[in-house]
Amino acid sequence: MQAPSRWCRWASLPCPSVREAAFMYSTAVAVFLVILVAALQGSAPPESPFLYHIPLDPEESLELSWNVSYPQEAIFFQLLVKQLKAGVLFGMSDRGELENADLVVLWTDGDTAYFADAWSDQKGQIHLDPQQDYQLLQVERTPEGLALLFKRPFGTCDPKDYLIEDGTVHLVYGILEEPFRSLEAINSSGLRTGLQRVQLLKPNITFPATPSDTYTMDIHAPDIQIPNQVTTYWCYIHELPEGFPRHHIVKYEPIITKGNEALVHHMEIFQCAPEMDNVPHFNGPCDSKMKPDRLNYCRHVLAAWALGAKAFYYPEEAGIAFGGPGSSRYVRLEVHYHNPLVIEGRRDSSGIRLYYTDKLRRFNAGIMELGLVYTPVMAIPPRETAFVLTGYCTDKCTQLALPPSGIHIFASQLHTHLTGRKVVTVLARDGREWEIVNQDNHYSPHFQRLGQNGHPQRSGRPEGGHSGRGSGLQLSEISSPPTPRLCLPQEIRMLKKMVSVHRGDVLITSCTYNTEDRELATVGGFGILEEMCVNYVHYYPQTQLELCKSAVNAGFLQKYFHLINRFNNEEVCTCPQASVSQQFASVPWNSFNREVLKALYAFAPISMHCNKSSAVRFPGEWNLQPLPKVISTLEEPTPQCPTSQGRSPAGPTIISIGGGKG
Amino acid sequence: MQAPSRWCRWASLPCPSVREAAFMYSTAVAVFLVILVAALQGSAPPESPFLYHIPLDPEESLELSWNVSYPQEAIFFQLLVKQLKAGVLFGMSDRGELENADLVVLWTDGDTAYFADAWSDQKGQIHLDPQQDYQLLQVERTPEGLALLFKRPFGTCDPKDYLIEDGTVHLVYGILEEPFRSLEAINSSGLRTGLQRVQLLKPNITFPATPSDTYTMDIHAPDIQIPNQVTTYWCYIHELPEGFPRHHIVKYEPIITKGNEALVHHMEIFQCAPEMDNVPHFNGPCDSKMKPDRLNYCRHVLAAWALGAKAFYYPEEAGIAFGGPGSSRYVRLEVHYHNPLVIEGRRDSSGIRLYYTDKLRRFNAGIMELGLVYTPVMAIPPRETAFVLTGYCTDKCTQLALPPSGIHIFASQLHTHLTGRKVVTVLARDGREWEIVNQDNHYSPHFQRLGQNGHPQRSGRPEGGHSGRGSGLQLSEISSPPTPRLCLPQEIRMLKKMVSVHRGDVLITSCTYNTEDRELATVGGFGILEEMCVNYVHYYPQTQLELCKSAVNAGFLQKYFHLINRFNNEEVCTCPQASVSQQFASVPWNSFNREVLKALYAFAPISMHCNKSSAVRFPGEWNLQPLPKVISTLEEPTPQCPTSQGRSPAGPTIISIGGGKG
Repeated sequence: MQAPSRWCRWASLPCPSVREAAFMYSTAVAVFLVILVAALQGSAPPESPFLYHIPLDPEESLELSWNVSYPQEAIFFQLLVKQLKAGVLFGMSDRGELENADLVVLWTDGDTAYFADAWSDQKGQIHLDPQQDYQLLQVERTPEGLALLFKRPFGTCDPKDYLIEDGTVHLVYGILEEPFRSLEAINSSGLRTGLQRVQLLKPNITFPATPSDTYTMDIHAPDIQIPNQVTTYWCYIHELPEGFPRHHIVKYEPIITKGNEALVHHMEIFQCAPEMDNVPHFNGPCDSKMKPDRLNYCRHVLAAWALGAKAFYYPEEAGIAFGGPGSSRYVRLEVHYHNPLVIEGRRDSSGIRLYYTDKLRRFNAGIMELGLVYTPVMAIPPRETAFVLTGYCTDKCTQLALPPSGIHIFASQLHTHLTGRKVVTVLARDGREWEIVNQDNHYSPHFQRLGQNGHPQRSGRPEGGHSGRGSGLQLSEISSPPTPRLCLPQEIRMLKKMVSVHRGDVLITSCTYNTEDRELATVGGFGILEEMCVNYVHYYPQTQLELCKSAVNAGFLQKYFHLINRFNNEEVCTCPQASVSQQFASVPWNSFNREVLKALYAFAPISMHCNKSSAVRFPGEWNLQPLPKVISTLEEPTPQCPTSQGRSPAGPTIISIGGGKG
Repeated sequence: MQAPSRWCRWASLPCPSVREAAFMYSTAVAVFLVILVAALQGSAPPESPFLYHIPLDPEESLELSWNVSYPQEAIFFQLLVKQLKAGVLFGMSDRGELENADLVVLWTDGDTAYFADAWSDQKGQIHLDPQQDYQLLQVERTPEGLALLFKRPFGTCDPKDYLIEDGTVHLVYGILEEPFRSLEAINSSGLRTGLQRVQLLKPNITFPATPSDTYTMDIHAPDIQIPNQVTTYWCYIHELPEGFPRHHIVKYEPIITKGNEALVHHMEIFQCAPEMDNVPHFNGPCDSKMKPDRLNYCRHVLAAWALGAKAFYYPEEAGIAFGGPGSSRYVRLEVHYHNPLVIEGRRDSSGIRLYYTDKLRRFNAGIMELGLVYTPVMAIPPRETAFVLTGYCTDKCTQLALPPSGIHIFASQLHTHLTGRKVVTVLARDGREWEIVNQDNHYSPHFQRLGQNGHPQRSGRPEGGHSGRGSGLQLSEISSPPTPRLCLPQEIRMLKKMVSVHRGDVLITSCTYNTEDRELATVGGFGILEEMCVNYVHYYPQTQLELCKSAVNAGFLQKYFHLINRFNNEEVCTCPQASVSQQFASVPWNSFNREVLKALYAFAPISMHCNKSSAVRFPGEWNLQPLPKVISTLEEPTPQCPTSQGRSPAGPTIISIGGGKG
């Protein structure tokens, strides 16, 4: 074994493998561990404290804080390493893998400590990046641990670097337990690694001051014991006071029991259906056999929070109505506990604090469902890495159903099932793409924490585990029988900029799917192994339009099956008794059949659902509608390449070990 | 008018508009115009003189010389400005336009002179590039003019920059006649601009020494007078001595009459067909009505040179046979004069010097035609910006027709008609793409000089102008009647690295077409408005295989027409009397029909031409062949991003005007 004497000197805590050697070096540690402003290149750290925080690993030994500077197009990160051993990796990658990742590495060779911008290749091998875009601003010992302050532009124009965009970012980390003689010698497969999904580019909006006449209501778990299992969805029914009149919720924020910050992964509050005048006071796991069936009718979202998010504010002129006649007095709190270390006996009272007012605001906020109808006619061939399905809210529907002044979308929740990888909604006006409503190029249908060792939890979680729970918010499904589901929509994300939708505008929602690990076509539908493509947009003023979605015309899909039979061996049954799912299951998926299906979806007329609720359509002809024509698309934004002045010198920054205050 | 006093001081020649002011400043000019090593950052200019030279503008006031450093992955340029006025633009763009160009600019605001890396947007507006990748090494006054020495990496990782690749590069230039107060103020539309197409990345091969026992034969125009018209193809018949025995050509090089370097655009020598035992000694324009028809049978290429190319060497173990029994004693020289300024009375004796030996080398070199059969079944829909057609030389054909030891390709000529934009041939082995034989991502079917003002000459040159000339090298067309044609293959480009083709290998040739300006489908064929996709590969040892090309199976194309009729309004006549060209002309080109045609070409079985000559097939079944399967493709090379150390500081380099030796 390598002599521990040198490299342990720079670790704040004893090296586990040489615990006995720790004491003799404790003085040296103190001398060393105030480290220096290493490469300050004219960019001072931001003055304000960090706005956003997230624990990276389940042990909470790594804590990330950050601020976003839109003027500088850069993020300031503070990585707090509570138990520094021989170093740490931190970075980003497409979907949380440690291969093809963009990394910063703090490491020691035993003598000297280094900080560098690095990247990992497709085998996970780490390399020094010739262009150093993570700029180290400060290294400081704090009572909690070693704090590394550094800065990264959103885009660096280095093809080895991750482009930080709106939407989900998959953060990765790794803990170096022992020194490596060089950066290239670090073997990422041997490290304790993991990932964390978070929206890094929080919108830069000024939050309205909370008016003095707002009340608060805390809806939280009643000091429960978090089960000693990795995944728990906890359900708790809260009853509003009798005669509770109509109010507007104007803000909500998480309340997390201290010490449980890494365990509470996301939380939602759902209002029960108006006809539910009595809901049992259930308090237990959502998949419990004891859970009353009535809870499945509590699905109208009032609040949705996920790890890394802050308070949610409604626009000053709008609020979401709750209480009063015509609304249920019961709400369901759902808390997702993620407990990968299976900690036992931890008690919790986390929940959400609602801020509400009886001075009703000018507008009720509403929620509208955009995207694809849940029907098997929209299908994804197997073994596709990035197959796109698109759903439309047509000009004809917005013309008919929106008020003359239009509506304003201020927030959005994206939703697919397991194979979804990207989601985007674009607004088109006069045949031209006009602006993006919401986009997530690294969408994850899980949006949940990772176990250790860098491998995202497989979708193959034991399905019986929590099969009883209702899915978050699926307006159009309310009239259909509740079915077991696993995927939740994302948390409600405030848009950077409110999007106004005029009468006659078109809303185009596209989802990109990866079906590499499937053998058969994946059809649209409610089942967890079927797919969805949905954007729940939060908007005001509320209208009757609850659902504006499309699917390919079924007759044209039958023409497709006839057509491919002609080019193949008549594998697809085109008799009336065959279901569309059966037909898709019998397609031989050669390149021709795949490409022609794509061409069909991009060409064939659609059937529109322009509905007040899933059962009630607006009057009009909605079948065989032409696909909306888009004659010009939005340009991909080209990232501003930072000047070479904004970069650190090529090569690692040496973090001097000598001297300094202890 | 602005006072000329300041900015003319830095011009080596009198400003035309202020000629009268020139004399008084001549002393100042001498003092100023030795300029300095401005930004030498550790990279010395190459020691050897520049290997490659090309005049940029028809006036020959700008001359570009360059060397390629493969170890540094950079090009060293010397731009000689013979008549400096207020500055010069130089750069590269996709197809020679001044919009979206990557530029270096030398300019003055009247007081100070600057050099900077810049780029132009899609409107031609010039901007300073925040990342300065053109590194100025030296500015020097020479007797001929101002010489700017600078260096550019092949790839810079700056999305605003052009990536210098193998194949054609479209160089652009502009001449600043007066000062501009800033870079952004330069209005490129008002400048005298132009383009020049050239292969910048010449292969870095060691040329075999010319053996002492080689003879030379100069085949050149006999002191002709270059016609006073922009474009002339000159034909001259040269007769080999009677009884001239079989020799091997081992090298050839251009001989350009001094002073005509900018007029002689390209030259080729063709051997006449063996049965041509008597060809008239014609000497005149190829489109002359006096030109004997027999010249159309002189099409077997012996040598092909284009502007910017140097000598061509055959590999040491091979040569191309000429002379002796079974070969014609007549060769045709064809010289393309490009005379955009319509200079009158210039005399010329340019031509090609052949180096040949009677010590026959071990192998005869041969030429094989790869790509698509000339048939209308391969078609490009109208209004496509980048439609790809692919032709195959299948494993079955190479298995049958190649010798057990395989063949070695050492050079290649690419060929399309007017809409061709890219050409590539890839070798696949065992179902995997193995290596690129030749690739040109900026292929130009013209490969000819430009007029002034930056606009490439339109394809609509008066077609009568030189309609009588034979096209360069089209082996498979020899038995078809000669038709008027305009497009020549590129010059013969030596490959960077010889490519060995084994029995059972597949050669895949893909051409990308732009039909944005066409209303109807462009079908394959011989006509100049029809298309081709051909790579003439030069290889040894010579085999009987002259032609290895494919086209989609005609029956599957008829299925396609039936299919699209089903989805549209039965526009396409599927009766037997309709020709394929007529059928394509009646297709309504919606997105579905386009995409399904693409899918058809990527899926349907092919008909192979695996031929000894165009009329003689190798025995075997060549119809309804499966498309070769390719299970893995070559990775796009990621450019090595230069470190920030290799860059110049952000912002323009000021070229100090004071002092210096005169």
